[in-house]
Amino acid sequence: MDSAAHTRQRVSVYEVGPRDGLQNEAKTLPAADKVRLIHALMDAGITRIEATSFVHPKWIPQVADAAEVMAQVDRRPGVVFSALVPNLKGLERAVAAGVDEACVFLSVTEGHSKKNINKSVAEAVSTAIETAAAARKAGMRVRAYLSCVWGCPYQGVVTTNEVVAVAKQLLEIDMYQLALGDTIGVGVPSQTVEILQALYPYYPREKLGLHFHDTRGTALANALTGIQQGVTSIDSSIGGLGGCPYAPGAAGNLATEDLVYMLQGMGLETGVDLEKLVEAGELAQSLIGKKLTGKYLQAALGTREKRAAKIRAQS
Amino acid sequence: MDSAAHTRQRVSVYEVGPRDGLQNEAKTLPAADKVRLIHALMDAGITRIEATSFVHPKWIPQVADAAEVMAQVDRRPGVVFSALVPNLKGLERAVAAGVDEACVFLSVTEGHSKKNINKSVAEAVSTAIETAAAARKAGMRVRAYLSCVWGCPYQGVVTTNEVVAVAKQLLEIDMYQLALGDTIGVGVPSQTVEILQALYPYYPREKLGLHFHDTRGTALANALTGIQQGVTSIDSSIGGLGGCPYAPGAAGNLATEDLVYMLQGMGLETGVDLEKLVEAGELAQSLIGKKLTGKYLQAALGTREKRAAKIRAQS
Repeated sequence: MDSAAHTRQRVSVYEVGPRDGLQNEAKTLPAADKVRLIHALMDAGITRIEATSFVHPKWIPQVADAAEVMAQVDRRPGVVFSALVPNLKGLERAVAAGVDEACVFLSVTEGHSKKNINKSVAEAVSTAIETAAAARKAGMRVRAYLSCVWGCPYQGVVTTNEVVAVAKQLLEIDMYQLALGDTIGVGVPSQTVEILQALYPYYPREKLGLHFHDTRGTALANALTGIQQGVTSIDSSIGGLGGCPYAPGAAGNLATEDLVYMLQGMGLETGVDLEKLVEAGELAQSLIGKKLTGKYLQAALGTREKRAAKIRAQS
Repeated sequence: MDSAAHTRQRVSVYEVGPRDGLQNEAKTLPAADKVRLIHALMDAGITRIEATSFVHPKWIPQVADAAEVMAQVDRRPGVVFSALVPNLKGLERAVAAGVDEACVFLSVTEGHSKKNINKSVAEAVSTAIETAAAARKAGMRVRAYLSCVWGCPYQGVVTTNEVVAVAKQLLEIDMYQLALGDTIGVGVPSQTVEILQALYPYYPREKLGLHFHDTRGTALANALTGIQQGVTSIDSSIGGLGGCPYAPGAAGNLATEDLVYMLQGMGLETGVDLEKLVEAGELAQSLIGKKLTGKYLQAALGTREKRAAKIRAQS
């Protein structure tokens, strides 16, 4: 690892708390609370926010308020709002709602594809290509999400060859970023290296994003590995919002504060204000009504609590 | 990162749960429970266990039962029990109790040294040298712990020069390992690289151990960095036992299961059985009476719970 090189590098944080995070929490928030959270994230300097999803509410009731959320959020210069769009129908709603960036999504594995979107991988590839083309025509930026890259809850092991095979089929999409998802949080750093190096002939590192779930505690180590391999876009979720649907009680997404703490400590530019990020995390925690798993957040709040107790004891 | 090199590497896990972990939990366990936990750890294949501490119980009441714990644990071939020994008096008790390995300990910073052991760093160095020499004479293996290597709760920033200055003073100790502690869990990977590279002229990588607290979520990323730099001994605590005394609610030590999961996934040899480690973690959790922070543990227990619910629903 060349730490001198790191000091010149910039890492872009893609915040998924308001969508991926909240969608996997037991409590559903009203649109106004989601909007408050998004505002707090922007206040902290986050400029890429996955705000919601235009998947049909029949499948994901938590995002029935997608248009409402988009209508209520402040539009600030430099901030890009993205949303999941499953197909042309969802895209239509996303365009009408004023979304900046369309995220098409699909799985590497047949098992997850069938269970998640009731399509074969081949059908999902076609839909993604079609939806992405229409999104580009509508003037939107396009991101493609690939799920189950490190492992699948149904199939188990996923080989790097399988990942490359699906990723190659997405090459005709005019996307700015392919986001690789460790959907069930099984990834380890050596595997991350292998996957990235297998994809580099098709996707240069500037075009890849990494999305880790912290189910087994390896998310930040994997993010570090990605950065060492030249990736400059990492997904994370405020406070670690979002559990794992496959293991109740397990941790959710990589926590944004932990990621930003590490990146800033390594001299990498993120443009994010860590103290204000803690405020956003505290808000997320109060909205959702439980302690979140983000470690930096708990340390910061714990230190604050200890300081308050000291002051109370003195007065 | 050369993953081919990794497949040939062995990493030794040094388990600190029974001492460092339990000492920082609110609930104090009876000796018999500590012994049960140590047995569960040995069952999982852990061969280096920090079993207790011979610090005077006036300072740390949780370890008043040090001799009792040592008297009750099974002695199994290949397993090394270590214990903290603060001085000659503590060493005398450790020798009488049959401890294999003496851990002398001190801080890099004056602030932490004064608060923790009421000695200046120079006094602590003298005591460590004297105690270690006596331990060697008594036929014990010696490990030296250096605290506050990445940062200090009183002084704040700690420079690598300060770390090297204290570490050099310990060169006359006949130790098998110098364990570097991120006592307050502030370390980031670039700093870990810097510290290790500054120490290598004095301590070859085979002689260094790394001890991370996960207060800000960076423990496993730092452990990975250490391994990439050639270190082969990592401290961890079952289930992540042990909070942070400086921030209530914050995470404790790096969780052993998370570490072992990552290492095994990377093809590194640990000799540890991950499933049995989860059993030890479950035991730790039931003894201490609360959910522990280890993520692999929670994922494993969550998956098991989900499976049980499915079976109940079918019956």
